[in-house]
Amino acid sequence: MMDSPPGVADLLGVLAYAELTAFLRFAEDATRHAPSLTDRAALGGLAAAEYAHFQLLRDRIASLGVDPEEAMAPFAGPLDEWHAQTAPGDWLETLMKAYVGTGIALDFYREAATRVDDETRDLVEEVLADEGRSQFAVERVSMAIKEDPRQSGRLALWARRLVGEALSQGQHVALARPELATLLVSEGDDITRMFARLTEAHGRRMAALGLPSRP
Amino acid sequence: MMDSPPGVADLLGVLAYAELTAFLRFAEDATRHAPSLTDRAALGGLAAAEYAHFQLLRDRIASLGVDPEEAMAPFAGPLDEWHAQTAPGDWLETLMKAYVGTGIALDFYREAATRVDDETRDLVEEVLADEGRSQFAVERVSMAIKEDPRQSGRLALWARRLVGEALSQGQHVALARPELATLLVSEGDDITRMFARLTEAHGRRMAALGLPSRP
Repeated sequence: MMDSPPGVADLLGVLAYAELTAFLRFAEDATRHAPSLTDRAALGGLAAAEYAHFQLLRDRIASLGVDPEEAMAPFAGPLDEWHAQTAPGDWLETLMKAYVGTGIALDFYREAATRVDDETRDLVEEVLADEGRSQFAVERVSMAIKEDPRQSGRLALWARRLVGEALSQGQHVALARPELATLLVSEGDDITRMFARLTEAHGRRMAALGLPSRP
Repeated sequence: MMDSPPGVADLLGVLAYAELTAFLRFAEDATRHAPSLTDRAALGGLAAAEYAHFQLLRDRIASLGVDPEEAMAPFAGPLDEWHAQTAPGDWLETLMKAYVGTGIALDFYREAATRVDDETRDLVEEVLADEGRSQFAVERVSMAIKEDPRQSGRLALWARRLVGEALSQGQHVALARPELATLLVSEGDDITRMFARLTEAHGRRMAALGLPSRP
């Protein structure tokens, strides 16, 4: 078993806060924008899964002898800012945010998984096993675009804003927490290249919806 | 095994919508009012448990051959109205609402449990087993009152408003859904008496906090 490398409490902290805040924001968006109780319940299910992930991460942080609140605190600002900059205006924007946001988060988990100790990796894999959960969002967005192709322009723009704001906040975090940045890049790699991989993966998700990823 | 009596889809519908909306509102209140990430996570835990209850209820409704959305729809108005009338202004009001709201809901489950079929009763008991979950709210409110006894006046007033609005919405529901009202009262009983029992139980919860239940 590998020991926790430096930066692992930061990694768990940023993931824990991301899950906690995603849970709370999805719940809020579900109340505000879901067009039916069934849709509200579906987004609620995604939100509840985020809370379960938060609990796993929080317990793992505590088991490292770190206070979860302290581990999360440095990331509350950038993540709250991301949510403030990307408050959805309607149900399709809400679904797109769930799909794009969850997608970026899962890519980030995958990047992280290769560089952490065994026990942290088990936890990361448990989260990744839940990957199908945001599929309902893809199905509904695809359907909406099929029914009204004029939606695709504004949704493509919205998705670019979601990912652009995420990379911008990610860069702030990487500068402020060099140990976390080091943890996320291997020899011969750098953080810019990792961001490029995240952007490519985002492009593939957009293509799956039949949307352009670049203007 | 007893068959589902008339009104049982209504009963499950009102409980399901109550759980779904409590989940979403607690999540929103946690984002808005929790003074620390630990507090936010604690209320989040209560919210996530409400979602788990919602899922149980929804599945039970579906197993009766009823569309969960249709079963919930008649109760969305009164429950949304209750939440709109009782939006907490700060963290202590949020905690008090969690304690009072969950308390009334559990009393209602207990009333209902005596009058439903076996399978529905199993579900009700599973929800009741979670009863300790809002205990953290009691502890924090008691502590706040001990530290600053001047809080007790406004919190007592707030609690009366919470229960008053609940009874008022409950009366609307009882009038609009006579089969549900019939289900909730046994021979020689009436709905007014059931409301009186709920009010008494509320008084005992207030006494546990050292608060008066009447002006």
